[in-house]
Parts: sequence; C-alpha cells; structure tokens
Amino acid sequence: MRDGMIAPMQLTLLGTGAAGGIPLWGCTCAACCSARDEPARRRRPASAALTHAGRTFLIDAGLGDLEQRYPDGVNAFLLTHFHADHVQGLFHLRWGPGVPVPVWCPADSEGCADLFKHPGCLRFQPQAPFTVVDLGEGLTATALPLAHSKPTFGWLFADNERRIAYCTDTRGFPPATAQALRDAACTAIVLDSTYASDHPAPTGHNHVALAVDLLVASATTRGVLTHIGHECQRAIDERRENIPDHIVVANDGLVI
Amino acid sequence: MRDGMIAPMQLTLLGTGAAGGIPLWGCTCAACCSARDEPARRRRPASAALTHAGRTFLIDAGLGDLEQRYPDGVNAFLLTHFHADHVQGLFHLRWGPGVPVPVWCPADSEGCADLFKHPGCLRFQPQAPFTVVDLGEGLTATALPLAHSKPTFGWLFADNERRIAYCTDTRGFPPATAQALRDAACTAIVLDSTYASDHPAPTGHNHVALAVDLLVASATTRGVLTHIGHECQRAIDERRENIPDHIVVANDGLVI
Repeated sequence: MRDGMIAPMQLTLLGTGAAGGIPLWGCTCAACCSARDEPARRRRPASAALTHAGRTFLIDAGLGDLEQRYPDGVNAFLLTHFHADHVQGLFHLRWGPGVPVPVWCPADSEGCADLFKHPGCLRFQPQAPFTVVDLGEGLTATALPLAHSKPTFGWLFADNERRIAYCTDTRGFPPATAQALRDAACTAIVLDSTYASDHPAPTGHNHVALAVDLLVASATTRGVLTHIGHECQRAIDERRENIPDHIVVANDGLVI
Repeated sequence: MRDGMIAPMQLTLLGTGAAGGIPLWGCTCAACCSARDEPARRRRPASAALTHAGRTFLIDAGLGDLEQRYPDGVNAFLLTHFHADHVQGLFHLRWGPGVPVPVWCPADSEGCADLFKHPGCLRFQPQAPFTVVDLGEGLTATALPLAHSKPTFGWLFADNERRIAYCTDTRGFPPATAQALRDAACTAIVLDSTYASDHPAPTGHNHVALAVDLLVASATTRGVLTHIGHECQRAIDERRENIPDHIVVANDGLVI
C-alpha cells in the first residue's frame, strides 16, 4: 500500500475518568449523581484506542469489557504505567489462547499484581525513555517520560499527517518531555487534568489550570483534558474553570 | 425483629467463570464461540452476593461493574483470596467516599497490587482459619482454609435454617475443612470445578470428577459446580462428564 493511500490515524478516548471513575462508588455529589442519571456523563478508566491502516492499538487497558469490545484481538498495547486503573483489563485478557500480543511499556520492576509472573499471551516489552517504537505503515510511537509516582510514559504518535500525544498520568512535564512536545508541534495533546484548579496540593496529577498552562506552553493546535476526577467535573459544570477555546474537556467516546 | 421473621439467606452467583472467563479472549473453541453468541452462556469472574435481612454481602469482587450493581453500597465483602480475578473490582470501588466497608479476608502479606497501601474506604480484616465472623441477625460466616497457591478461604454461611458453603479456589480440601463441611451437613456447597476430568494434572483447582467426589463425601444435600473453565465447559456440553443428579453446573445468576 502506498503511503498516500493510508488514512490518518484516529484516536478514540475509551475512558476519561480518574482512578475511581465517575460516578465514584457511594458518592452523592452533583457530578456523581448526574453521571448515574445520564450514562453519557459516566467516566470510565482513562484509556484510548488508536486505529491506523486497519489496525488497532490500545493505550492502557483499564476497561473490564475489552474481550467484548475487541473479540478479534488488537495489534498491541501501549501502557502509560502499571497502576491498577490502567492495566486491570489485562488480568483476564492474558489467558486468551491467541497469538502473542506486544505490550510496549515503561520499565517497572513491580508491574501490577502477578502480570509479569503470569503474562499469558502478553509480551511485555519495557522501553527506555524517548524510544521510538515503529508500529509499521508509517506510524511511530515515542515514549515520553512523565512525572508520576510510578515509571510513566506519555505516548507521542506520529503518522505522515498528524502528531497526537496522550499524556496521563502526570503532574507537569519533565523538561525534556516539554521540549519534545514543543518540537513536535502537536496536532493534539490529550492531558491529565484530574483535579479542580482550587486543589491546594495536587500530587501525581495536574489540576485544570496547570494542564492549561502546559498545553498553552506546548503550542499544540488542540488540547484535550482527560483523567477527570469528580471534583474537577463539578468545577467544570459550575463554570469555575477558565479554559481557552482551543482546549476541550474530553468525554468517553471522543474521537480525535 | 424476632428471628422467626427473618427470611432465609439467599446466595446469588454473580459470576461462575475461571480466571479468564468464558469466552476467553481470542478463543474460537465451541464453548467460547457459543458464549459470544448467547450472553446467557457467558461466565464472568467467580463471585457471589449473599442477601439476608435486607443486607448484602459480596463474596469476592471480580466484576468490574459493582458500582452500577450496588450504587448504594454493600454491608461487607468476604474474600476468598487475593488473586486478581477475585478482587479486581475493588480497585475503583475503594476510592468511594462513603462509610468504611469491612472486608473479611485471609491473612496474605502481599494482597493484590496496592490494595493494602491505598485501601481507601475498604477495611481489610484478615482472619485466622476457622474464625466464625458474626454478620448479625443470626447470620455467621466461618473461614474454611482451602488448598490453593495463595492463602485462601472457603466461606461457610449459616443462618437459622440453612448452611451454604462457597469454596473457590481449591484443589481438594484440607482434612479439617472436609471434616467441618461434613459436620455442618450443608444445605448446599458451591465448589471449584475449573477443569475437565481428563485434565492430566490439575493444580490449584479441581476437575469435575474430583469436585464430584468431594461433594459426595461431604454428604451435602446439593452440590453446585462453579469457576468453570472453557475446557470444562466443552466436556459438560459434550456430555463427557458424569455428574450425579443432586449436583448442578452453575450459571451466572443462579440463586441458591
């Protein structure tokens, strides 16, 4: 197939929630109650699917229904890190008898639970920061180190037309990652925005104002806020956040 | 409330599958294909709900949709053990802001992933083997040690009328547990039956013939086979297993 015949990559956000999702179990705040009433307002574990040239790559695996969504398999996983809300969907998928599936991931000696001890059909392939993974058909994924409580990567995808970065979980960017994102002149950056801007001491994750500052500094064409917690959701619903026009708040199912 | 006014406990099997569930990801065997075609043949992670006197106790938490099934919370969890397919539903539930929830469980220094480090609303309460947990309203749960690759309990529930034992994951019974089950003269025993009887070397789990032998030896009124793997399912579908009339093969949703 000639390069010119391949449609641009497409990134679909499968989940856009912080670790507990929205609604949080037993929470009666306005954001959680409205998500119970309106399924479109639910936020599942932050994760995404990148499709390109008839292939599917999953970024993280926090959803519990991946067998039903992808019964015929996927081409590979790219993990941001090994916290449970980002890998819990692998616990049952791994026992599938199909062909081995590459799992590009940060080097993390712990992994999550017994995933490394019993990988099943998964082939974990730890990468060094800034490694460029060749996904074939002119598509690459660059591992961008992030600032989180476990070794964590953002993934910068590039095809012949676009550059899309997917960056959860992080608080700020390490300088070299910020520089790489500026240099890439990204078409879109999907970024962690777990907390409301009035959070007194965000750790491990951005709040909205910090995420907006990072996106503006990156000079991306489009910013997308994800990994949204329920307090952040309330602040957005109550119009307490100041978000520029070129930055949108994601919802589950958003296509980029 | 007088004892005589409380209805007997009711046990609902929420999931009856082995670790990978049925269908297994990417598997094209007859059992997995038919489960994709007929949702009633799906087997989710082995787990159950015990209801009694208006209260709900969950045995294991392998399902990913417990927030939607139990938005108002549950009274407690009773865990068999800390393998991922039995506890993965706790990873997001724990972040709920509601009242603390007791989690009766075996003593296991590892737990699963970071559940002990970040328990959130969960109050893990490790128990010694044969501890009798008082669940109130005349309901008790006895921790029966099982034979598995991690510290594992079966749970023997007793109210004024019935004694129901729930025993996954195990290969055989330790002698003291077999004796306790005989002494209890159980109304029903739900038992691990992961493998087909022609499995050459079952480890950590029963095959059907072993499960049947254990149930017959226990002299229970009713046996229920659960934690079914896809090879076991095929053997059952193809009528290759010899199962006495008082023993049934569970399905998701079965009420005992």
